[in-house]
Amino acid sequence: MRMVDLIAKKRDGHALSKEEIDFIIHGYTNGDIPDYQMSAFAMAVFFRGMNEEETAALTMAMVHSGDVIDLSRIEGIKVDKHSTGGVGDTTTLVLGPLVASVGVPVAKMSGRGLGHTGGTIDKLESVPGFHVEIDNDQFIELVNKNKIAIIGQTGNLTPADKKLYALRDVTATVNSIPLIASSIMSKKIAAGADAIVLDVKTGAGAFMKDLEGAKQLAKAMVDIGKRVGRKTMAVISDMSQPLGYAIGNALEVKEAIDTLKGKGPEDLQELCLTLGSYMVFLAEKASSLEEARAMLEESIREGKALDKLKTFLQAQGGDATVVDNPAKLPQAEYQWELEATEAGYVAEIVADEVGTAAMLLGAGRATKESTIDLSVGLVLRKKVGDRVEKGESLVTIHSNTENIEEVKEKLQKSIRISPTPVRKPTLIYETIS
Amino acid sequence: MRMVDLIAKKRDGHALSKEEIDFIIHGYTNGDIPDYQMSAFAMAVFFRGMNEEETAALTMAMVHSGDVIDLSRIEGIKVDKHSTGGVGDTTTLVLGPLVASVGVPVAKMSGRGLGHTGGTIDKLESVPGFHVEIDNDQFIELVNKNKIAIIGQTGNLTPADKKLYALRDVTATVNSIPLIASSIMSKKIAAGADAIVLDVKTGAGAFMKDLEGAKQLAKAMVDIGKRVGRKTMAVISDMSQPLGYAIGNALEVKEAIDTLKGKGPEDLQELCLTLGSYMVFLAEKASSLEEARAMLEESIREGKALDKLKTFLQAQGGDATVVDNPAKLPQAEYQWELEATEAGYVAEIVADEVGTAAMLLGAGRATKESTIDLSVGLVLRKKVGDRVEKGESLVTIHSNTENIEEVKEKLQKSIRISPTPVRKPTLIYETIS
Repeated sequence: MRMVDLIAKKRDGHALSKEEIDFIIHGYTNGDIPDYQMSAFAMAVFFRGMNEEETAALTMAMVHSGDVIDLSRIEGIKVDKHSTGGVGDTTTLVLGPLVASVGVPVAKMSGRGLGHTGGTIDKLESVPGFHVEIDNDQFIELVNKNKIAIIGQTGNLTPADKKLYALRDVTATVNSIPLIASSIMSKKIAAGADAIVLDVKTGAGAFMKDLEGAKQLAKAMVDIGKRVGRKTMAVISDMSQPLGYAIGNALEVKEAIDTLKGKGPEDLQELCLTLGSYMVFLAEKASSLEEARAMLEESIREGKALDKLKTFLQAQGGDATVVDNPAKLPQAEYQWELEATEAGYVAEIVADEVGTAAMLLGAGRATKESTIDLSVGLVLRKKVGDRVEKGESLVTIHSNTENIEEVKEKLQKSIRISPTPVRKPTLIYETIS
Repeated sequence: MRMVDLIAKKRDGHALSKEEIDFIIHGYTNGDIPDYQMSAFAMAVFFRGMNEEETAALTMAMVHSGDVIDLSRIEGIKVDKHSTGGVGDTTTLVLGPLVASVGVPVAKMSGRGLGHTGGTIDKLESVPGFHVEIDNDQFIELVNKNKIAIIGQTGNLTPADKKLYALRDVTATVNSIPLIASSIMSKKIAAGADAIVLDVKTGAGAFMKDLEGAKQLAKAMVDIGKRVGRKTMAVISDMSQPLGYAIGNALEVKEAIDTLKGKGPEDLQELCLTLGSYMVFLAEKASSLEEARAMLEESIREGKALDKLKTFLQAQGGDATVVDNPAKLPQAEYQWELEATEAGYVAEIVADEVGTAAMLLGAGRATKESTIDLSVGLVLRKKVGDRVEKGESLVTIHSNTENIEEVKEKLQKSIRISPTPVRKPTLIYETIS
């Protein structure tokens, strides 16, 4: 087999066999196939696509390019959730304790990553004492005991995906449904998931700006799941504006606590209940989505979800009293209000611009070397569709500097007020299973 | 400017500006742009194409990536001919002396190259004593004096094209009209051509297998010529079967001599007269193609073309007596006849298969390190459409080994006999100017 012939085959619109895809991924991972052939191949895939069989084969080839986490010592069906990323997405912090509280094992491996705010681990480190430096045995023991634990990335997972993603990033071949779908799914499968719930975001703050693309991506991932024996369900949710109110690390932890108390932002709560229902259903802890949702609502109402959060934090060294007293979380020195310059209805809050404003405050990492300020961030006071009076606050800015002109300017530009009423955007566009 | 953005621009079907194309070619030549970005770009061009302005800009960017030969000290309009390559293509050996004999300056820079037979220089080295080790001043002096001289590749011509071609070869991005057209035209322009005549081959033995592709390529090159001030004309000619009878180095020199005597194969002679007329016309030595053709026919009839060949060979150290006594050319030890196993009409002589058979005998180079046997090769006895009787010779095999079974087998497979009459293929499909 020669890589140049396989590039030509894909270029000419033919489907590759499993053996051919294995050859490509194996060869690329071990360096036999050079970057310049792989990038030409990726561009051919961009134009020609891949059918469902090819995409599944690509996914599993990437899974087997490195370590595969063995979670078989954890009792029950391990359901993982993945979001394609957005701004102020606090779902993971809420969902973990929520579904664990009804008996779904949550064995979360997470990273720090780059972005508007830190990753899940960064956020949780807002809780004094909390850490993820536990070994694999402790991790499994904790999940079996408490149904929830989180560990930092271990092992050499999907090296083929890492290498290919870095290459796609500099060769304008990121935006290909089969390549995105196989990248996401390979990571989840290598991390040991038995079943997967996907939150595919769409809108200005999402990677997939348009609904049609988000649908295709969701369908492609659900199909991969089916073909490789991992039950997968997907939700297409709105990311035209940030989810919830908080964008920041400690601020999002506080918002998650509120949500687990049943007092969180409506959109965040609704999305968590939807995604959570799927997780409970796929974990076979309920026989229907309705039953699953009822279990979760009850868990919140009765305080079980909140208790689960406390147990979880404590088990990994965290000060669980923050749950009842969120003032113990890192607090920024200053709070500023961004006032509306005119009365009307909020028509637009451009999610990625707001995210960038949070990053400017220090909430996220621009490069791997950046340090994160866990205390800073933004709390939206209004969301799209809300009525606002002149002088009313649109956003509270939590900062550790008095120099926030640039942040204010960015926010001002990203929030548009309309004189006439505006409809709230749809939160969940579609579910795919 | 960032290469990744330019790849995305082309990927999305937009045209690049001259500045953007210059940035790409300059950056790629000096190593700032890595192979993996260039190959993704080439694949995007494969799918999206380039418009005429882009293709011209790419051509000139490649011309200026290295040295440009200055032929201004040669009197007259320097017309170069280029063939897209085929099997048994002896036109260059015929055309040089032929058009020089009517006053067109032929300042030929040539290479050795890989292929079924050697390059033009290899072929000419069949003539005892002939060499191309002349310096630039001698070269120009010879052209001004005799109207014809040939020199080996000098200078660092179109390094961008060399680098890009090598990359395209291993990334399945060779077959793109704008990339092929700009590659060919950049080399001709860098070699100092004022005007260019192109022989675009089509059929089984050609790079462009189908007529439509050949037409598009010819049109693209003629258009580049127009845009960059080099008058260009193109002929689309048949390469379904080999051109002429001879495939081999000394054998093709002998065939060229025959053709300059007016006794060559009909197809080779016709194609040389057509291409030659264009060269004479573009060199402004005739005011019409008809007049040009008449001049060339007269030159052959009166022996001027043959005399020009003698002058040319002698001027570069060659034994010009080979022209009158071709037996002085290298002769292979053995001659074998490939006999027809049935009577009928020759329906097919698959050009590239026949070429490979010649290479097996030692007539060409498979790698740069291969040495060429100038004496060996094939002489077709029949061409498509000819009547053949059982036992009659189809091909004479000139070899220096008795072990020719593989060659015979290959030839047998590549020549098809039909019981019913077969039409001769069209030699010249179209001319484009």
